[in-house]
Amino acid sequence: MSTLAARAAQNLNLVRQKKPLIHNITNLVVMNITANALLAMGASPVMAHAKNEVREMVALAGALVLNIGTLSDEWVASMVRAGEKASELNIPVILDPVGSGATMFRTASAQKLIEKINIRVIRGNPSEVLSLGHQDSKTKGVDSLHTVDDAAITAKVLSQQLKTTLAVTGPTDLVTDGVRIIRILNGHPLMSCITGSGCMATAIIAAFLAVDEDAVSASATALSYFGLAGEIAGNDSDGPGTFMVRLLDALYNIMPETLEKGARIIES
Amino acid sequence: MSTLAARAAQNLNLVRQKKPLIHNITNLVVMNITANALLAMGASPVMAHAKNEVREMVALAGALVLNIGTLSDEWVASMVRAGEKASELNIPVILDPVGSGATMFRTASAQKLIEKINIRVIRGNPSEVLSLGHQDSKTKGVDSLHTVDDAAITAKVLSQQLKTTLAVTGPTDLVTDGVRIIRILNGHPLMSCITGSGCMATAIIAAFLAVDEDAVSASATALSYFGLAGEIAGNDSDGPGTFMVRLLDALYNIMPETLEKGARIIES
Amino acid sequence: MSTLAARAAQNLNLVRQKKPLIHNITNLVVMNITANALLAMGASPVMAHAKNEVREMVALAGALVLNIGTLSDEWVASMVRAGEKASELNIPVILDPVGSGATMFRTASAQKLIEKINIRVIRGNPSEVLSLGHQDSKTKGVDSLHTVDDAAITAKVLSQQLKTTLAVTGPTDLVTDGVRIIRILNGHPLMSCITGSGCMATAIIAAFLAVDEDAVSASATALSYFGLAGEIAGNDSDGPGTFMVRLLDALYNIMPETLEKGARIIES
Repeated sequence: MSTLAARAAQNLNLVRQKKPLIHNITNLVVMNITANALLAMGASPVMAHAKNEVREMVALAGALVLNIGTLSDEWVASMVRAGEKASELNIPVILDPVGSGATMFRTASAQKLIEKINIRVIRGNPSEVLSLGHQDSKTKGVDSLHTVDDAAITAKVLSQQLKTTLAVTGPTDLVTDGVRIIRILNGHPLMSCITGSGCMATAIIAAFLAVDEDAVSASATALSYFGLAGEIAGNDSDGPGTFMVRLLDALYNIMPETLEKGARIIES
Repeated sequence: MSTLAARAAQNLNLVRQKKPLIHNITNLVVMNITANALLAMGASPVMAHAKNEVREMVALAGALVLNIGTLSDEWVASMVRAGEKASELNIPVILDPVGSGATMFRTASAQKLIEKINIRVIRGNPSEVLSLGHQDSKTKGVDSLHTVDDAAITAKVLSQQLKTTLAVTGPTDLVTDGVRIIRILNGHPLMSCITGSGCMATAIIAAFLAVDEDAVSASATALSYFGLAGEIAGNDSDGPGTFMVRLLDALYNIMPETLEKGARIIES
Repeated sequence: MSTLAARAAQNLNLVRQKKPLIHNITNLVVMNITANALLAMGASPVMAHAKNEVREMVALAGALVLNIGTLSDEWVASMVRAGEKASELNIPVILDPVGSGATMFRTASAQKLIEKINIRVIRGNPSEVLSLGHQDSKTKGVDSLHTVDDAAITAKVLSQQLKTTLAVTGPTDLVTDGVRIIRILNGHPLMSCITGSGCMATAIIAAFLAVDEDAVSASATALSYFGLAGEIAGNDSDGPGTFMVRLLDALYNIMPETLEKGARIIES
């Protein structure tokens, strides 16, 4: 635990020093809060989805976020384009399969991206992640919750199948590359009462991927940082409105040493 | 008055128990705040506009919101598609004719949706609602205000013409199905100083429509709940920024019994 | 200095009296916060990008904002359409060349708009503005910062080349029409820690352009108003989350006389 907590502090520090450009092709609901979360933590967000510029933009980036909420054919095409260029340049790509399992279009789009692109990490809730391997999981919208425990064993197998690191978030977060399994205990119940907390988690992992080549430690440490920000915000909130505001404040204010002390990461 | 106040409490309770999925095809300005308002009240929002998935998504939903702010031909086509499927499945549809009357494209799009879809409720400000029946009302953007009284008599007639329930919002809100006329006195002046308060009202009515088959009582009780949240937020705000934050907090914190006491609904 | 400070107060007063409609074709990240900033200051925002309605909408407006963040071919085509109509009707147009210099598509789109439309003001950060005249500046995302001093001399020359007023924002803001050079000292470091502060500045200048025909004084006074709001918000914030909220409150609460006292505008 001490190793990953120290790594969390180091990664946060590196993001603030290097201010990596994070290229997001993300959904219309969370664009603003995602950009603000990245800025608050010290990274440099850019949102760009036009087919004419995604290749050029991703070449400037430290990491690429592909998020399929509010997707359309054109956006998926741009995601493939940007993702292929990132794969070519060895720039880390993280996929957020928002709502995969809810409609065939979402599931098929997520699967197409996995097939065509070298995805470093997939971040989703249990039902979304499960939908990528099986056809037997139907999500109830993007905010339905399942226990992480249901997904733990499957996640390890699925990670091996998909040949990528999985970050499955919920009351307890789980990160696995098919060999290691890491649980992150940080977080707060109000995180599920605002839209975009999953999408923010994905973007924050992307920023850590830009400074940490190990997808497992980048994901686990990013989730502990985000979860700790949630704890700090949640302890000082009257509801989801104030929570969202204080979450951005906490992302901005958490010092690396505070993160090292507060990170609750368990490798089993 | 006591009957509808009790119904308000009951509807809020039912939303929190059933957490209905609310499918929104809404404008780019208010997507985030709308999703957050629905989550804060206890519903499950999903935003999806792709022609490939709207039919499948709406089939999972308890209600459908069609909001024509920032519309385009493609989005209107998806609205028709989703709305026709909802009509077929008897899933309630609410239309928010944002800016109808301001441009011919908006007015024509709203009228096309009314023609093709079984709309349960139309929620708009007076000039928007008036534009659906007449050609003599020009709105000055989406935030221009008119008195509800100007619209009261017309609304009843228009409701009969359009064969749907109308929810006309302003300093006093008015709900009519062409027979009953209900006024809701809850609300706060700061509601007109933030963007998306009308759009949020529409989405909140949608959540109540998912648990209350009576379009008049669903609309009136939802507006009293939203208006009460505005009062609570407004009494504790320094301006529109803090108001927006506290509005989400209030939607989250209001208990059914508080709503029953605070609802100011008058049936005349 | 006293003249422009008095003019700032006068412009703010006029916006609150006339509530000009500001038509925005702007990026997906900042639509909500831009609309809220315009509402908070007393203007009437409308967002509309459909080719079918932009000509009709802009004809109702006091000013037009063209912002190329998250651009695509279709949106640029609508910007040209709206801008040409505005030019024809002598409605002021302000261009925000977000990310110009970062990709060829952004730079080329900004240049196309400048060529086809009578642009009253261009508002950008130094690297964006510099990219419009030279090919030797590469921006690092939209939030990279350069010193205004680097751009001062070039700005004057560039303003003459482009035959428009330039508003170059940063720690110190600079406004020039190629003859006059004005510096605005108002502002707060947290403004660079939230997304959309540049875009909000552009929209606020647009509202002032709707009531002040002198592009230089409209730009300089708008930037001092926005910067003063930033100072008030920044002195009462725990981080970027609370800052954003208090910024909207400050835009709403600043009285013309407070602005006249607080404006720090230097004409050299």
